[in-house]
Amino acid sequence: MERAEIIGVGTELLYGETLDTNTAEIARSLKPYALEVERTLRVADRLEPLAREVKEAWARARLVVLSGGLGPTPDDLTREAVALALGEELFLDREMLEEIQDLFRARGRRMPESNQKQAFRIPSARFLKNPRGTAPGWWVRKEGKDLVLLPGPPVEWRPMWTELLPALGLPVRDYGERVLKTWGIGESDLVERIQDLFPEASREGVEVGTYAKASGVEVVLRGPKGAVEGMAERVKKRLLREVWGEGEETMAALVQRRLLLEGATLATMESLTGGLLAAEITRVPGASRVFLGGMVSYTPGAKARFGVPEALLDRTVSEEAARAMAEAVRRSLGATYGLSTTGVAGPDPLEGQPVGTVYVALAGPGGTEVRGYRFPPSSREVIRLRSVYAALALLLT
Amino acid sequence: MERAEIIGVGTELLYGETLDTNTAEIARSLKPYALEVERTLRVADRLEPLAREVKEAWARARLVVLSGGLGPTPDDLTREAVALALGEELFLDREMLEEIQDLFRARGRRMPESNQKQAFRIPSARFLKNPRGTAPGWWVRKEGKDLVLLPGPPVEWRPMWTELLPALGLPVRDYGERVLKTWGIGESDLVERIQDLFPEASREGVEVGTYAKASGVEVVLRGPKGAVEGMAERVKKRLLREVWGEGEETMAALVQRRLLLEGATLATMESLTGGLLAAEITRVPGASRVFLGGMVSYTPGAKARFGVPEALLDRTVSEEAARAMAEAVRRSLGATYGLSTTGVAGPDPLEGQPVGTVYVALAGPGGTEVRGYRFPPSSREVIRLRSVYAALALLLT
Ligand SMILES: O=C(O)c1ccc[n+]([C@@H]2O[C@H](COP(=O)([O-])O)[C@@H](O)[C@H]2O)c1
Ligand SMILES: O=C(O)c1ccc[n+]([C@@H]2O[C@H](COP(=O)([O-])O)[C@@H](O)[C@H]2O)c1
Repeated sequence: MERAEIIGVGTELLYGETLDTNTAEIARSLKPYALEVERTLRVADRLEPLAREVKEAWARARLVVLSGGLGPTPDDLTREAVALALGEELFLDREMLEEIQDLFRARGRRMPESNQKQAFRIPSARFLKNPRGTAPGWWVRKEGKDLVLLPGPPVEWRPMWTELLPALGLPVRDYGERVLKTWGIGESDLVERIQDLFPEASREGVEVGTYAKASGVEVVLRGPKGAVEGMAERVKKRLLREVWGEGEETMAALVQRRLLLEGATLATMESLTGGLLAAEITRVPGASRVFLGGMVSYTPGAKARFGVPEALLDRTVSEEAARAMAEAVRRSLGATYGLSTTGVAGPDPLEGQPVGTVYVALAGPGGTEVRGYRFPPSSREVIRLRSVYAALALLLT
Repeated sequence: MERAEIIGVGTELLYGETLDTNTAEIARSLKPYALEVERTLRVADRLEPLAREVKEAWARARLVVLSGGLGPTPDDLTREAVALALGEELFLDREMLEEIQDLFRARGRRMPESNQKQAFRIPSARFLKNPRGTAPGWWVRKEGKDLVLLPGPPVEWRPMWTELLPALGLPVRDYGERVLKTWGIGESDLVERIQDLFPEASREGVEVGTYAKASGVEVVLRGPKGAVEGMAERVKKRLLREVWGEGEETMAALVQRRLLLEGATLATMESLTGGLLAAEITRVPGASRVFLGGMVSYTPGAKARFGVPEALLDRTVSEEAARAMAEAVRRSLGATYGLSTTGVAGPDPLEGQPVGTVYVALAGPGGTEVRGYRFPPSSREVIRLRSVYAALALLLT
């Protein structure tokens, strides 16, 4: 198979001052195409190494995509490096210069001298319009190959790339992908449940991967589209009670959708998650249509104030406390459902209970359901996250 | 300068199913050394490309560090690839095999056949003990150069690398780094405030970078230690009102420390941040010593229930609402300070106010302070984060 090379440009990417998620996102966008991504690179803002890497990548690949280093500052060197690597000369494109000047004028400003370099290109490059910034991209087609320069910020490069990609005429392949998201089953139990399907999946060219996330174990199926679809349905049947969503779906978005359909409302009272549950719910636009509000009862005093019975104030890590909290907030805010979390996020044990002991409860018109967990040791933040998903799962599984 | 090459191994890193943060962390750990990191790589779990990349890296560099691909499964190929690249043969090290078998025995299990491959090495490799897993690392010293194989999980490789790094005898350099964290000043205003220092910084070999984060603009100074320290003090003087912390410090941790020193307590009422403010405060261990609890008043009904006056319920995005919320939660939970947020996170305008309009308030023994912001357009999540930091900043700047 021919190769694609993906390069993120910027010293800040090497050191993680900016997290490089661009190269991975671009790699994912290439999955429907018959191009091999063997590696991705992050390269410093330095002319010589950058030019060398581009030259090597260009020699190997059918497609080279670079993102970053198109800004106006002296250490934005991607244009210069590509010119060197391809043995062409940069020149000022007057038309583009005017466009950039117009952009500034429209914002009531004069273009700073430094932005002039964004109007340079090499003869074989066409400009790609940037709908969200001043840095245009480049598209070079040469020797039957393509090289694409994109700006660094996702809001800028995403629309440019989405428009360009189909126009590149890359060789396609029969490719499908399904991501099944589960809650309430461990990775090895899950594998046991489906592993007799593996030989057939393998015969059909379907890759099966499992990934443990805070929101549960994900099963990812990749390969020829038809075979992937068939296999996904079979896996789903095996995990009927555990699968809560697919693909890009999030628990919070599904909870909102379910509540809207039901015409129901939700309120939360949380202890160990300290607001993270409400934050996850309100992350989804439209939350205010179903989410009334929440309470963070982080101390016994707050719990008492929020309507938790006296007797439970010194046994906060318990089924009873979770139940009382869910019922109290449901009543207090007049919601259809009350959802609660209580437990030990760590780093130390609490009330004699080890880190990872968590109770979540859902109070509704039909009564209250409580679930208890003993999550394996991990960081405070991971335990809080898993508790949030444990609570949301009460509305989904 | 000699080079260091850092390679993350794993197809899941290429596609971002696992975010590669290892290569960046290893790159940062090399800053005190006189080695150039020109690029980092992520390479797929495939023998041929991986061997090729290791060979190229080994030819160029004084130090090659690989992380990942040391597991027991068939697609863990780092050992094989390195053997190929260095032209050596793998052999089973009986001593290591016994150690791994002992590890399993200690957990009351028999070693699965597949783990045997973790006891293989090449003649020039020494094993590095893995205190947290079954995969030992490798340290190869050859031709005056070093090659190091580390497992993928940070909890496993971090202690191994921390121990090995000083023992490698790498050339050191005079290196210092300071990160000054500000709130309440834009990036270009900040640059204007300090840019007359740039020529001198440059003469002294100090690199000055500014990075806009949700928690404010960070000024990063890097270079010879003495010069960096001197320059940091001068920059700090220019930004006396804006600098709230340094290095790894977070606003929430500093807020907790300040409240502890004062013997004070805190309670929150949030609207647009929907719990994110309380979640950020409770992320820091020990939060329960100062944080009593919080309210998420996401709808007018919840606001009323939480003690916000009727008259303000339909003007939630206002200075008055922020003030009333902070004062209500302070009173209601009996805290020294009440902290509030209200505003428009988007995606749509609200009450005729554009996305990014935010008010935060701090009610305390000496009265109530309110601050208003009009954040530039960005995602709902970024606006919520910036609002959280705007609120915390009330206690720090
Ligand atoms: O400040 C408030 O009182 C307030 C309470 C709830 C929601 N909002 C904002 O109202 C908008 C709609 O909220 P949502 O969650 O339904 O998308 C969004 O911009 C929120 O940030 C604002
Ligand atoms: O469940 C509760 O009622 C509860 C309320 C506040 C804190 N906790 C837990 O108590 C421990 C100490 O909390 P902190 O914030 O002071 O580190 C930690 O494990 C928290 O997760 C638990």
